[in-house]
Amino acid sequence: MPEFLKVLPYQNALQLIVDNFPLREIEYLPLLNCNHRILAMDLASPEDMPAFARSTVDGYAVRAEDTFGSSESLPGMLNYINKVRMGEEALFNIGTSQCAWIPTGGMLPPGSNAVVMVEYTEKLSQDTILVSRPVAPGENLMQKGEDVSQADIIFRSGKIIKAQEIGLLASLGIDPVPVFKPYHIGILSTGDEIIPLEQTPAVGQVRDVNSYSLAAALESCGAVVRRYPLVEDNFKSLQTAVDKALKENDVLIMSGGSSVGIADYSVEVMLSFPDSEMLFHGIAVKPGKPTIGVRVGKKLIIGLPGHPVSALMVFYILCAPVISPASVRQLAATINVNVASQPGRDDFIPVRLLEGNTGWLAQPLLGKSGLMSIIAQADGYVHILYQQQGIKAGELVNVNLF
Amino acid sequence: MPEFLKVLPYQNALQLIVDNFPLREIEYLPLLNCNHRILAMDLASPEDMPAFARSTVDGYAVRAEDTFGSSESLPGMLNYINKVRMGEEALFNIGTSQCAWIPTGGMLPPGSNAVVMVEYTEKLSQDTILVSRPVAPGENLMQKGEDVSQADIIFRSGKIIKAQEIGLLASLGIDPVPVFKPYHIGILSTGDEIIPLEQTPAVGQVRDVNSYSLAAALESCGAVVRRYPLVEDNFKSLQTAVDKALKENDVLIMSGGSSVGIADYSVEVMLSFPDSEMLFHGIAVKPGKPTIGVRVGKKLIIGLPGHPVSALMVFYILCAPVISPASVRQLAATINVNVASQPGRDDFIPVRLLEGNTGWLAQPLLGKSGLMSIIAQADGYVHILYQQQGIKAGELVNVNLF
Repeated sequence: MPEFLKVLPYQNALQLIVDNFPLREIEYLPLLNCNHRILAMDLASPEDMPAFARSTVDGYAVRAEDTFGSSESLPGMLNYINKVRMGEEALFNIGTSQCAWIPTGGMLPPGSNAVVMVEYTEKLSQDTILVSRPVAPGENLMQKGEDVSQADIIFRSGKIIKAQEIGLLASLGIDPVPVFKPYHIGILSTGDEIIPLEQTPAVGQVRDVNSYSLAAALESCGAVVRRYPLVEDNFKSLQTAVDKALKENDVLIMSGGSSVGIADYSVEVMLSFPDSEMLFHGIAVKPGKPTIGVRVGKKLIIGLPGHPVSALMVFYILCAPVISPASVRQLAATINVNVASQPGRDDFIPVRLLEGNTGWLAQPLLGKSGLMSIIAQADGYVHILYQQQGIKAGELVNVNLF
Repeated sequence: MPEFLKVLPYQNALQLIVDNFPLREIEYLPLLNCNHRILAMDLASPEDMPAFARSTVDGYAVRAEDTFGSSESLPGMLNYINKVRMGEEALFNIGTSQCAWIPTGGMLPPGSNAVVMVEYTEKLSQDTILVSRPVAPGENLMQKGEDVSQADIIFRSGKIIKAQEIGLLASLGIDPVPVFKPYHIGILSTGDEIIPLEQTPAVGQVRDVNSYSLAAALESCGAVVRRYPLVEDNFKSLQTAVDKALKENDVLIMSGGSSVGIADYSVEVMLSFPDSEMLFHGIAVKPGKPTIGVRVGKKLIIGLPGHPVSALMVFYILCAPVISPASVRQLAATINVNVASQPGRDDFIPVRLLEGNTGWLAQPLLGKSGLMSIIAQADGYVHILYQQQGIKAGELVNVNLF
């Protein structure tokens, strides 16, 4: 009969994965392809933005001093001398008591230091404008370099690039952008009872689930995924398949073959390559106890449990935070029932989020562990640390969103 | 001089966009390509899952009655008769006082009704097993159909498909999957001061930002995006470009050309097509007042402000919730300073999230409106309704995450 697995605390297993995860390489990508990528170095602004003082309203560029004292009952009178055109340099000068039409975004003409909004003006004649409200120097304009000054650090390495970041990079003309290359991660499912999705299972057989759900989860972490065909549960086939997958990827995720019994030669295969090292075999977590970590040279094999629910949960707690740390999102919620937990292991409880009167409620989806229909209803999970005995109804918890 | 814009309340503008947004078509996609797609109809399970009673542990399949009364001091004795193999039908019968080895996931042999975990057994001889703990009928197994029963509705139309959903669909063999086709959305930027990213701006010119940031934001909403070359600010060029873009997309997002002045012929262009209708011209929001909505036949044009920050904010408040309602994520946070707001318009305040002692804090990024560097630091925005006069420090608010 197989022995009990020796188990490692969750945090230690996670740290071993972090320490042994391959290093990320850097690539320069066209800005348009950078959405959801991670910036690979600190970026400094190559220039001032705006590059010239711009109006933030439609109105008249003026010397602010000329508007002081203006009011509706006693409007100031300015001499209209010219018009700023969008996209063109303003080459004329605003002298005392002069003004020029300026559209939003137009360049402030030399001599002027403020803009009066069109709403507070009236055109008295071809060359006379009445101003019914004073402006202070600097009002209704953006100074050169006010948004970003040259050499300012605009983003730090590790920032996830989204629409806003792309906007700022575009406005500064930064293209291409240094980002981390995605990880190449292979998925290999084993198990004699597992059949491809398109076949009809005979009695006793089940369909391959993990290579589908893990591919989606990896994709959502920004990885480039390779799915390998199902492998029979025997040493030689498995060794050949693992060898190929290790060559083609940075990390290999295996599922099935890690429960006691079958685990024996599955581990033997993982350790059959030169410079391979067992990092852990068994973790003090629920679900996911029979998880395996093996380093092979500079690559990593993570052996997930075969059961689809456990495999996916272990992926979320052990792999996702390392592959895509910035994508982990938490949300505070109040747990709505007591949840017991056995001290000495970390528990991960799938929860559904409900809207409460004063924020989110987390509804644990307890039921029998291992139901696909349950995890498919979950919005995230709650982590109960190994020193905790459980969580009491009414406590505030962090929900890690799927 | 241009007139003031007549403005529509935010909710009315949003409702007009919802009412006039093109209908979504349905397509059947291979399961592997369904990640992040939206399910287009309710799905019922074609079969029972599991399809047979399965063990959830490694151990011995037994008749539960035969274990009653077993204890460590007085173990029960069972007759070992056979072994269940993974992926094969169990064709032998478990009779009184008999047992068979069964691995996790193995099919329960006829006659048995429970599984004793291997941890509570001892192999006395080739054909005798000692049991040190009783099991109840149904213990350590999953009944046929217990996870999902045939004809159960597993997912409702509108569900976002992620890794867990893909897992459940795979386990039930549902492939391909009916999902909504992505919207095809075009982006057209105008403005004589706007130059392509790769050119060096002369004084008075600025780079095209919106077609980059909006493309990323649309992509994140699952849309198929077409970016069109910059168009000069003149009627004929604009009409030709809009005509082409309307033919090639479901929705056209324009930016620039919607502020007063230039807006005149930009609106004229939008209304120059057969069966076109102005939905709104100006919204009571900040930022984003000069936003335009025009229906052209069954298609829609949304004219966003030219300013990059306003354009992106209006996209988030008016377009994203319609293109991808399920992607809108909120998070409760405590606002950490007073924010004033003018009644009569909806205000949208970019905020940064900070970790507080009892949950998230929302730090409004006030500064001068329109700074790209500010919105690029924001994690989301807070919506101040038009009837509100502002938010007091310490109030709980919903942050809409970017």
